[in-house]
Amino acid sequence: MTAITRHLAQLLTRSSPSDLPAVAVHAARRSIVNWMGAALGGCRDEAVQRALATVSEFSGPPQSTVIGHPQRLDMLNAALVNAISSNILDFDDTHAHMILHPVSLIACALLALSETRRMTGCEFLHALTLGVEVEVRVRNPRVADYNFAWSPTATVGAMGAAAACGRVLALSEQQTAWALGIAATQAGGLRETGGSMSKAFNPGHAARCGLTAALLAAKGFTGSETVLEGPKGYIAAFGQAKNVDAIIEGWGESYQIELNTFKPFPCGIVGHAATDACLELYREGVRSDAVESMQLTVHPVTVKMMGRNAPTSALDAKLSVRHTAAAALVFGTVGVKQFDLACINDAEVTRLREQALLVIDERFRTDEAEAQLTLRDGRVLMKHIDHAVGGLERPITDAGLESKLKGLAEDVLSNAQIATLIELLWTFDKLEDASALARAVRN
Amino acid sequence: MTAITRHLAQLLTRSSPSDLPAVAVHAARRSIVNWMGAALGGCRDEAVQRALATVSEFSGPPQSTVIGHPQRLDMLNAALVNAISSNILDFDDTHAHMILHPVSLIACALLALSETRRMTGCEFLHALTLGVEVEVRVRNPRVADYNFAWSPTATVGAMGAAAACGRVLALSEQQTAWALGIAATQAGGLRETGGSMSKAFNPGHAARCGLTAALLAAKGFTGSETVLEGPKGYIAAFGQAKNVDAIIEGWGESYQIELNTFKPFPCGIVGHAATDACLELYREGVRSDAVESMQLTVHPVTVKMMGRNAPTSALDAKLSVRHTAAAALVFGTVGVKQFDLACINDAEVTRLREQALLVIDERFRTDEAEAQLTLRDGRVLMKHIDHAVGGLERPITDAGLESKLKGLAEDVLSNAQIATLIELLWTFDKLEDASALARAVRN
Repeated sequence: MTAITRHLAQLLTRSSPSDLPAVAVHAARRSIVNWMGAALGGCRDEAVQRALATVSEFSGPPQSTVIGHPQRLDMLNAALVNAISSNILDFDDTHAHMILHPVSLIACALLALSETRRMTGCEFLHALTLGVEVEVRVRNPRVADYNFAWSPTATVGAMGAAAACGRVLALSEQQTAWALGIAATQAGGLRETGGSMSKAFNPGHAARCGLTAALLAAKGFTGSETVLEGPKGYIAAFGQAKNVDAIIEGWGESYQIELNTFKPFPCGIVGHAATDACLELYREGVRSDAVESMQLTVHPVTVKMMGRNAPTSALDAKLSVRHTAAAALVFGTVGVKQFDLACINDAEVTRLREQALLVIDERFRTDEAEAQLTLRDGRVLMKHIDHAVGGLERPITDAGLESKLKGLAEDVLSNAQIATLIELLWTFDKLEDASALARAVRN
Repeated sequence: MTAITRHLAQLLTRSSPSDLPAVAVHAARRSIVNWMGAALGGCRDEAVQRALATVSEFSGPPQSTVIGHPQRLDMLNAALVNAISSNILDFDDTHAHMILHPVSLIACALLALSETRRMTGCEFLHALTLGVEVEVRVRNPRVADYNFAWSPTATVGAMGAAAACGRVLALSEQQTAWALGIAATQAGGLRETGGSMSKAFNPGHAARCGLTAALLAAKGFTGSETVLEGPKGYIAAFGQAKNVDAIIEGWGESYQIELNTFKPFPCGIVGHAATDACLELYREGVRSDAVESMQLTVHPVTVKMMGRNAPTSALDAKLSVRHTAAAALVFGTVGVKQFDLACINDAEVTRLREQALLVIDERFRTDEAEAQLTLRDGRVLMKHIDHAVGGLERPITDAGLESKLKGLAEDVLSNAQIATLIELLWTFDKLEDASALARAVRN
């Protein structure tokens, strides 16, 4: 049995900010622009208000900023609440190959820590990149067959956040192994939460657990040093081991954060291609009142994860590709408003959604879909999307990310604050004190 | 698919303290006597000190007592630290059939809550009993084949604590279902932590997660209402479902807390029978210097969970049945001191431990063992233990529990404090304000 946990800890402690190529640094900058947009957009959500009301009762000293709010919380609760904000709209980042949201929860743990432990912007981005590396490498399907009930984002999140926070806390190799061990034994997060507020609680919990693990290890609290590869460890618990050594193969050749992508639509990523197809048809002049019925051909996992019908809430509708496709045909856009109850209950959206047929094609990729519309005049229109917009093949531009952030932040920050924030995010790696970011997003 | 989560929530909200028969109430009283002994014995451990040093940095208002310490923490951190204290000596309770430690972590969550939410002693014991009911019923092997890598105590602990805390918070049926959902999605805890401080962190984490879940649900934070039975839910995640309906079968006919047992030795429960056998031989006059070698015949799970040799720390030695058996032969007693480095490194203990042979017998029960000693004079002595002391068949008496508590508490509380505490615990169900217990265990 290879000592993978210990080896990984060694790689993490030996990595230096100067190792990162420019392309990784820029990918990290793009990731934090997207993250902060998602967090500002989500920070007034009812789920965040209820979480804030709960933790305010037992939160510690006002150490760390709550994004988009005036109050501060202790760093653990701030990490928790901010990661809920970042995820609640389903607008956060997605790793192109692993279909998990790697950045937001780690960034929230680091943001909270940046207000109690001095770190530069460059150190923040380096730690973030390492955390993503841990998450994506552990989740690699070559490492294990993971049980589908577990949320990928949540289950690797605590270890990712622990690795990132451990790096800025300058943990030793042994402490880093302990931090991974303490994080892994806290890991959890069920997909069954979909449709409830606790889906967004999952990454919040992971952020808090990862930060806790790093802080405990820093004080000498010991964890397992074989938590990944051990027979009663993480991989054995969450699935069936295949090639555990794959976790560290090719370390440093490139960085997983370069494969991070950003959503144009605030819903499950595996519904984006079908939504995109309907938007294309709308742009070509199709209007919903001409449409009799709709058939969507998708990858099996789209049905598995976004097969809901008859949504009754925004959180529900985000898991309904029938809903996002119908809304695309009716409104010609799929933004935050298309998940409001007004849109969910709209008669035309409901009509199209209810008769929409989902067809599975095993040969499709998850970012591929085909929409087939039968019009009232008998014509049939088809639109095939090879790669959904927002993915690696058709990425959002830097300007597109900026405009996404502006749209999401406008109800929370002033235009002047938004302009300052955008400037700060694009030059974050030059920042002497990363906590400037936290100060820029208080309201 | 039966709506088991919802049904369970209904049973929990409809249960009343007056439903409990006297035998269950007395079992609950015995459980808290044992719990408080284990917690007081463990509260000065290095692991607890390091956890305290960590959480002190971000803990909230001084709401809740840290057992055996002067300071107070916010209720979540108090629940966490106290549950570490309760488990660190491996001296906590064990459910006779499920081999998990059901009471301590729930009791720690309730103790912390009792200082911010008024509850009577009777309500505390009722809530505790319900929490144990949830833990043991979910863990029943008739419900599912659970993956061995997961710690039984930790994985069901958050739901047990959420059920208990939800009951004293008077959650509605829907809120109770949400609390179970929010707890289940936080559930985790790996057996690979064995030998490190994070083994005791697991129940601490579960206590904190369960209390968090109940507090969130009370504020309307929504969770999955199908978290147990859902296809992407708890049971599908942690194992292979068998009969999920078994969770609620026979509810109220008797209470699982009546099957709670208490350890005479501070180590893994599946090593107790072999330890007991060596102690019996010592009592019959055998002394270690006459012993050439030793063979222990045990149930397979004893080797799986306590098969370590060459322990280097107390936490390690608690997972070595070779060590506990050797110490029994050398010292004639197996208490906290038999896990100190002085005993681990004792030449005679080391000699006996190193040559001890473990033999598996599939036909043995987990509380059954046989010790075979080969003496220097060539004689062979055998001792077969049908049921280890401390189990259901040979339970510790009430007086035995009292004396266990006294021994564990003597370095932490004065004799007068201990006498008051014992009186309070045996009459806990008559108490108007359960928080008197917290006040009685501050130092």
